[in-house]
Amino acid sequence: MDQRLLTDLKAAIRSIPDYPKPGIVFRDITTLLGDARAFRRAVDELVHPFAGGRVDKVAGIEARGFILGGAIAHQLSSGFVPIRKKGKLPHETVRIAYSLEYGVDEMEIHTDAIGQDERVILVDDLIATGGTAVAATQLLRQMGAKIVAACFIIDLPDLGGAQKLRDLGVEVRSLVSFEGH
Amino acid sequence: MDQRLLTDLKAAIRSIPDYPKPGIVFRDITTLLGDARAFRRAVDELVHPFAGGRVDKVAGIEARGFILGGAIAHQLSSGFVPIRKKGKLPHETVRIAYSLEYGVDEMEIHTDAIGQDERVILVDDLIATGGTAVAATQLLRQMGAKIVAACFIIDLPDLGGAQKLRDLGVEVRSLVSFEGH
Repeated sequence: MDQRLLTDLKAAIRSIPDYPKPGIVFRDITTLLGDARAFRRAVDELVHPFAGGRVDKVAGIEARGFILGGAIAHQLSSGFVPIRKKGKLPHETVRIAYSLEYGVDEMEIHTDAIGQDERVILVDDLIATGGTAVAATQLLRQMGAKIVAACFIIDLPDLGGAQKLRDLGVEVRSLVSFEGH
Repeated sequence: MDQRLLTDLKAAIRSIPDYPKPGIVFRDITTLLGDARAFRRAVDELVHPFAGGRVDKVAGIEARGFILGGAIAHQLSSGFVPIRKKGKLPHETVRIAYSLEYGVDEMEIHTDAIGQDERVILVDDLIATGGTAVAATQLLRQMGAKIVAACFIIDLPDLGGAQKLRDLGVEVRSLVSFEGH
């Protein structure tokens, strides 16, 4: 990837110290999303390796994954499928539990959202420990999806989530990485 | 607009009777979003009147407005700005209260998300009574935005929200309308 583009994208992300709690630096992508050129280049750069092949669906993880996922689905002329927190989808769903830092939560997807052997790209804004992305991968595979790749703007490699996805055989693509957490 | 396209888009929306409560028919756009051709055509049809002009930002209302808003921002090569439920944005925000069927809620936007006189398109999946869209309009204008239009896939005209926006001088664009609520 073009080093200058990556430097520009990294500069477009706002770092907020001690949020949501002391010692954590929050990587805020809203400043990148709001920058027309950075947003467009991030989307196009993330998906260009997949533009030639077949991608049936882009699955975005609520909520920030919806923004990027909507744009990626449009760019690839794919359908979009939301993976939501429990209780938000109006029709029959498949649900999976996943661990948070404290306790567990559940995410779900409509039962008819993905067909057998459909080729799917999973999208979220950031991969950290990988709790949600690993659960989303399991959910999509349980429905018969072939996961083409998982795409994120930001990777926090020290937290190991991208490696967990790779260990599951998922191609991971991200644009910017930050050390630490 | 092309009548056949509109018929196709309407057919791609799933109607769920008695959801979220008896007597309400819920219009579920996830089936339209998941249909690659319908999703792409909906996005392109919604924004083609604005493709020639300047649109600085697309403001999407959480959460379904993020999907459509992300795609529209990409299509128009604009920046994207999230309008979120309170407590979700990490930096300094401006907040506005709005009425729900029972009680009130608040939405917010980052203080630096919109510059004075920036040209903004407001996006959500559906306009019903207009409570959230009217509040979002007030919030955006308070920040100095010029609202180019408000775009929705679905209008429920009997609930009057689109008319409320027009009364505020906002151009409203929607693709499909359903009678009743």
